[in-house]
Amino acid sequence: MIRLLYKIGLPAFAAVVTYCPLSAQPRQKTKPNIIVFMVDDMGWQDTSVPFHTEVTPLNKRYRTPNMERMAREGVKFTNAYAAPVCTPTRVSLITGMSPARHRVTNWTQIMRGNNADAADDTFARVDWNINGFSPEPGVPATIHATPLPQLLRDAGYYTIHAGKAHWGAMGTPGANPANVGFMVNIGGHAAGHPQSYLGTENYGNKLGKITYHAVPGLEEYYGSETFLSDAVTKNALKALAQPVREKRPFFLYMAHYALHVPLQADNRYFGRYLAAGLDSTEAKYASLVEGMDASLGDIMEYLDKNGLARNTVIIFMSDNGGLSLTPPRSGQPHTQNLPLKAGKGSLHEGGIREPMLVRWPGVARPGSVSDQYLIIEDFFPTLLEIAKVKPGKLIQQTDGVSFMPYLLQPGRKDDQRSLIWHYPNRWGGTGPGINHASAIRKGDWKLIYSMKDRKVSLYNLRLDIGELTDVSKSNPEITRQLADELTARLKAVNAQMPRYLKGNDQVKWPNEL
Amino acid sequence: MIRLLYKIGLPAFAAVVTYCPLSAQPRQKTKPNIIVFMVDDMGWQDTSVPFHTEVTPLNKRYRTPNMERMAREGVKFTNAYAAPVCTPTRVSLITGMSPARHRVTNWTQIMRGNNADAADDTFARVDWNINGFSPEPGVPATIHATPLPQLLRDAGYYTIHAGKAHWGAMGTPGANPANVGFMVNIGGHAAGHPQSYLGTENYGNKLGKITYHAVPGLEEYYGSETFLSDAVTKNALKALAQPVREKRPFFLYMAHYALHVPLQADNRYFGRYLAAGLDSTEAKYASLVEGMDASLGDIMEYLDKNGLARNTVIIFMSDNGGLSLTPPRSGQPHTQNLPLKAGKGSLHEGGIREPMLVRWPGVARPGSVSDQYLIIEDFFPTLLEIAKVKPGKLIQQTDGVSFMPYLLQPGRKDDQRSLIWHYPNRWGGTGPGINHASAIRKGDWKLIYSMKDRKVSLYNLRLDIGELTDVSKSNPEITRQLADELTARLKAVNAQMPRYLKGNDQVKWPNEL
Repeated sequence: MIRLLYKIGLPAFAAVVTYCPLSAQPRQKTKPNIIVFMVDDMGWQDTSVPFHTEVTPLNKRYRTPNMERMAREGVKFTNAYAAPVCTPTRVSLITGMSPARHRVTNWTQIMRGNNADAADDTFARVDWNINGFSPEPGVPATIHATPLPQLLRDAGYYTIHAGKAHWGAMGTPGANPANVGFMVNIGGHAAGHPQSYLGTENYGNKLGKITYHAVPGLEEYYGSETFLSDAVTKNALKALAQPVREKRPFFLYMAHYALHVPLQADNRYFGRYLAAGLDSTEAKYASLVEGMDASLGDIMEYLDKNGLARNTVIIFMSDNGGLSLTPPRSGQPHTQNLPLKAGKGSLHEGGIREPMLVRWPGVARPGSVSDQYLIIEDFFPTLLEIAKVKPGKLIQQTDGVSFMPYLLQPGRKDDQRSLIWHYPNRWGGTGPGINHASAIRKGDWKLIYSMKDRKVSLYNLRLDIGELTDVSKSNPEITRQLADELTARLKAVNAQMPRYLKGNDQVKWPNEL
Repeated sequence: MIRLLYKIGLPAFAAVVTYCPLSAQPRQKTKPNIIVFMVDDMGWQDTSVPFHTEVTPLNKRYRTPNMERMAREGVKFTNAYAAPVCTPTRVSLITGMSPARHRVTNWTQIMRGNNADAADDTFARVDWNINGFSPEPGVPATIHATPLPQLLRDAGYYTIHAGKAHWGAMGTPGANPANVGFMVNIGGHAAGHPQSYLGTENYGNKLGKITYHAVPGLEEYYGSETFLSDAVTKNALKALAQPVREKRPFFLYMAHYALHVPLQADNRYFGRYLAAGLDSTEAKYASLVEGMDASLGDIMEYLDKNGLARNTVIIFMSDNGGLSLTPPRSGQPHTQNLPLKAGKGSLHEGGIREPMLVRWPGVARPGSVSDQYLIIEDFFPTLLEIAKVKPGKLIQQTDGVSFMPYLLQPGRKDDQRSLIWHYPNRWGGTGPGINHASAIRKGDWKLIYSMKDRKVSLYNLRLDIGELTDVSKSNPEITRQLADELTARLKAVNAQMPRYLKGNDQVKWPNEL
């Protein structure tokens, strides 16, 4: 990938860039440390870092000074994507597979054998992998693949899981981060959200009230004021002491439970948002954002203090768009990610576009911006490239493409690649682009196939980031090309398509409309 | 210690022995791996290995073929001791301190701030460390010390906790094995017993029935027939893959929840004991024993298959005597450890004498027996010596003495050392030697001070292992000497003594009677 880079035309700042990747790496005696800082349910605008072409009201609402620092010191990716809900994103991250291929197309229930798909009056439930990811073969309704943390561990990385896992259901091996390749597990299991963020509530482990969503471990903070985001961060930094002492490269998957519901106030920050005039629900949400950002700050400070900043890559990402259902959010539904349309669960931009930042001193150019679109399954090959790991045998066929070239040359562009989304499930919530949909992006164009409406819509994201105007009628050729490409890519991975309850016919492919 | 050994007279097999410790160790390129195989509530006779001078009916009842193998391949210690209940033993193991010094003299409740001492009509509760061990200073009602696993980890060992922890209460840092120095934690937390041994009951994690005693983790076995002893072993062996691959020494603390109540049938073995005529309670107990022994077998087989047996020390131990209360056991109370008197909770031999085995090929002489008395706090200096770790600064003052000399020379004897026990608490159960007692052993003599009876008893263990005859009257000089020595040792560590509810006077010291 890097080699290829030098055969093609280099833009104006090439002279600055070229010294970095090839000379910086030999200076590093060890493999770089890697931190994937994954936030849950964080929208593209849930930050004071402007990811849009202009500063938005939401950017002014939220305080994320540590994300601002990362943006100053690294590359801001304005067109980074994930799946519209959580488990598909997380499975793509560790397998490099598109959800259409791995078939964990919806979020996994906490206990195996339970289907998260809501009942629908038009379609039968598709046959998806309701139990999630499995590191072992033969587990029913799972995708069996070689997980990224295991590859990194086997390459000598000290691998730490902190926070939310949600790869597999209880009663399957994928429930336990230890089986996914993590040497340390802090608070992760099958659950997709915490029972409580509060130490005073023992993170949900209150006798007589314990549920499967009670956060495991962290007993040392029971009864204290320590907010979950902080407890998990503290223990993650404690766990780093071991590889740091041994001068061994580490992979920290810092996966916050925040900002997922239940929306609870992080009292370190809550008051300031109430004082700013937000209603209590949105003030709680904003406090979750700032508490998560404080964790990022604590981690960067730890790296500074231990002389690790230079040889550590931090990748900041979210797993899907911000929640735009009301309740639990307040205000008008599906306005929480403006200027993006809709939110979590939707194939509109509000459901899938993520705030992504990468800091890698000496490699990723400080204060730069990449508008290249990329998607969560790209993390798999990218992290392997960063770690200089060439896996011999993978169980799975991967879909991701390394985004390393855009770290080296943020101005670089590829308008010919296509990204696809496939969500043939009924999530539960309703709204634009939510439930039974597939989509494709190529260049500035994006086509969404709404299966129930038997219709495709086309948007030009450069001109219409809010997806307000369907331009399929006026661009029949582009519509046809994208419908064909989406169909071909779905068929190539044998993507599952819903069947009608009446008659059992399979829903049409996008190019059959 | 070893150096000293060569200055004194060597017995006849010295020529065989001397090549071992000094020449064998340099041949080992790495530090030896260490496995402490700690069983919960296992009595001295709960095994087919005869620890007494003759084979007993209990030896014939239980099937422990893997312990038999260990006895054939290593040293059998017939006079190994622990504290009469669990947390004191476990804290002594990781701190090297006598319970009289660390003051965790009773078992810790699962949630901090709760005193496990039963109310008494004579004595007020003593001021003991009800929250257990703490790796951090300033935690109320804890002993702050440098824990053994942390020292081993810092010396390069890959440290794995598997099973029962029970060092500190929830809401304190000692609850979490990660804070005690373990890099991997499989199923350990503040609890002293599992809610359930059954995979079909999710080890107690059944919705609507979850308690603090539900075993954390192991979600991959939920709903399966995997018995807890087997699940923990399987995951411990999985965790070993990492250090084995890296050729890094490991410390596996394989601490079974078995044989603690609840007495549940391990169905792999239960039927055989029913068929042998045991009542169902004792058949369950025997099945717990055999399931634990199977774990030992699985571990030895893993070592064999991976070429690790030669450079791995295994130490088999129990944390206190077998439970002799009925119910939950069946039969006549306090006969479950015959020929030893009483059981768990008692300072009679049934409560404190443990089945201990050590296998270390090339160092510990196969098939040999050591009758030297030793005690659980001796594990701390011994393991450090095995690991060749010389800790620079310990927070605590230790009491233990390395038993390495008895591995090298099982025939060696030291009759001048004294061991003490101090249990100034009310456990809850009743029976001989239970509640508010201290004791001392020196040579063949053992003196027990029963505080409520204001009386000391003296036994000659060589002649009367069952402690049937108090010979204090006929041996006044020995009684006085031992009472003096026990008093001096308790005073030296400022041991806490109960006070009478009436008048608030402190109970007399043993030599004041």
